[in-house]
Amino acid sequence: MMDLARRVAEAADLVTVALDELLPRAEGPESRLTEAMRYAALSEGKRLRTFFALETGRMFDLDERSVLRAACALECIHAYSLIHDDLPCMDDDDMRRGRPTVHIQYDEMTAVLAGDALQSAAFEILAHPDTHPDGGVRAELVSRLAVAAGARGMVGGQMIDMLGVREDLGGVARMQRLKTGALIACAFELPLVIAHAPDFERHALMAFAHDLGLAYQIVDDLLDAEGDAALMGKAVGKDAEAGKTTFVTLLGVDAAKQRLGLLKTQTKSHLDPFGPRAEFLRASVDFVLERRQ
Amino acid sequence: MMDLARRVAEAADLVTVALDELLPRAEGPESRLTEAMRYAALSEGKRLRTFFALETGRMFDLDERSVLRAACALECIHAYSLIHDDLPCMDDDDMRRGRPTVHIQYDEMTAVLAGDALQSAAFEILAHPDTHPDGGVRAELVSRLAVAAGARGMVGGQMIDMLGVREDLGGVARMQRLKTGALIACAFELPLVIAHAPDFERHALMAFAHDLGLAYQIVDDLLDAEGDAALMGKAVGKDAEAGKTTFVTLLGVDAAKQRLGLLKTQTKSHLDPFGPRAEFLRASVDFVLERRQ
Repeated sequence: MMDLARRVAEAADLVTVALDELLPRAEGPESRLTEAMRYAALSEGKRLRTFFALETGRMFDLDERSVLRAACALECIHAYSLIHDDLPCMDDDDMRRGRPTVHIQYDEMTAVLAGDALQSAAFEILAHPDTHPDGGVRAELVSRLAVAAGARGMVGGQMIDMLGVREDLGGVARMQRLKTGALIACAFELPLVIAHAPDFERHALMAFAHDLGLAYQIVDDLLDAEGDAALMGKAVGKDAEAGKTTFVTLLGVDAAKQRLGLLKTQTKSHLDPFGPRAEFLRASVDFVLERRQ
Repeated sequence: MMDLARRVAEAADLVTVALDELLPRAEGPESRLTEAMRYAALSEGKRLRTFFALETGRMFDLDERSVLRAACALECIHAYSLIHDDLPCMDDDDMRRGRPTVHIQYDEMTAVLAGDALQSAAFEILAHPDTHPDGGVRAELVSRLAVAAGARGMVGGQMIDMLGVREDLGGVARMQRLKTGALIACAFELPLVIAHAPDFERHALMAFAHDLGLAYQIVDDLLDAEGDAALMGKAVGKDAEAGKTTFVTLLGVDAAKQRLGLLKTQTKSHLDPFGPRAEFLRASVDFVLERRQ
C-alpha cells in the first residue's frame, strides 16, 4: 500500500506543477482574478481524478504529457465547480481543505469570475496542439469533457442537489451520477479516447468508474454524518441540517456501510479483463474509499 | 439600408432557431436549469455576433451550417456572461432587454448554474463533428473561443471593469478590448479559421473587429450617459452612479461623439481589401453604431 500512497501523491505533484505552468500568471490590473484561479486550482487536494487518469494512461501505454494535460483540464473543471458550489447562494461554505473558500479569501464577484475563467482554461488546455497531435482526438476530448461538465452532467447534478428534488434511492443515485460521477468517469474516459481503446475495455472501465463514483458518494455522505470537522477541513453535518436526502438519510448508517462493502467488491470485479495491468487501480479502490477526509 | 436591417433580423432568427435545437430541453428534476438556460439564450437580442459571423462566412463562401454552429457557441458565451454580469455580486441588474434578469426570474443559484452550463454548451457545440468535418479545425475553434472567453479575454476584462482599476483612456481601452472586444473579434475569427483565410485578409478583418468593438463601447457609454431607460430595456446612468471611468466620463460627451465619428471612418477603411464582397459588413458599421438601445 505504501507504493500506492506514493503513486497518488506523485500524481498530485505532477498535476500541480503542470497547472502552475499552464494557468495564467498574476499580472496586469486583472491579477486578482488570476491569483484567485491559482489559489483554488493549485491548493493541495487529493487530485484523485488525476491519479485515475494517469493510471489509465499507464494501462494503455499512453504519452504521459497528453494524459497529464487532460488531467489538468479535469482539475480546472473540478476547481471551478468547488468555487461556485461554495458560494453563498449555493452551499455557502466558508472553509475548504482547511482554508478559506475563494469568496471568503477574495470576494463573491472574484469567486464567480475565477470559476468562469477556470472553466474556459480547461477547454483551452484540451484544445491546444500540445495535448495531442491529432485534432480529431483533441476535439473529442473537448466534447466529452463539455458533456460531463454541463447541464446533462455536473451542473445538472448540482441543480438537482440544490433543489433537493429526490425522494428515493434512484433519485439520489441519479443526482450523484451527474453531480460527481460524470467528472470522475471523465478521468477514465479522456485517456480511453486517447488510447482508441476497444469497446469491451471501454465498457469495463466505465462500469468501474460508475460504481467507484457511487461508492465515493456513499463515503462522502457517511463522512458528513459521522466525520470529524477538523480532519475534514470543512463543516460536517450539513446534509442533515439542510434536510437533504442522501444515501445515509435514506438507508441509515449501518445499511449504507453494508452497501458500500458490496459495492467495493463489485467495483473491483470490473477490472478483471485488465488482469495485472490494473494492479494500481484495483488497489486504489480500498485506498480511496477508506479515506477519513 | 432596408436590406441590411432584414439581413440582421434574419441572422437573429437563424441563430435562435438553431440554439433552440441545440440547447438541452427542459426535462427531469433539473428542468429549472435548462429552462433558465433557454430563457437567457433564446431571448430576443440583437445577435450582432451572429450577424458578423454569418456575413464573414458569406465573404468566404463557407458552409453556412458550420458558421451558424460557431455563432451558436458565441451566443452561448455571450448569454452566460450577461447572466453572471447581472448577478447581485456584480452589476446587480434586475432588467435586461426589457425582461427580468435570470436571477430575478429564477434565483441566484439557478443563474450561476445556468451561466456555467451555457459555457460548457458553447464548447460542446464547437467540438461536435457537425461543426466541421476536420477535427483540427474544430479544436482550433475551441481554442480561439476559450482564449477569448477566459482570463486573458472576456472574464479578465470583466474583472478589470468590476475593480474599476483604470485611470486613463489606455486603461479603459484595454478593459474594453478584453471585456467585449475579444468576443466580438471571435465573430470574425471563427469563420476565418474555417476559411483558412490568408494572413492579409485575417489581419484586415481583425483590425476591423478591433475598431468596431471600440466604437461599440463608446456608443454603449454614450447610451448609458444619455440613453432612454424605457427604450434600452434596462437601467441607465449606472456608470456615473457607480463612479466608473468610461470613455464618456474621461472625454465628455462631445469629444466622445467626435472620436466615434473618426473611428467609424477608420473602421470601414479596414474593409478596403475585400471590395464589394464586404458590402454588408461595411454598411453595418453605421447601422450598428447608430443604435439607440
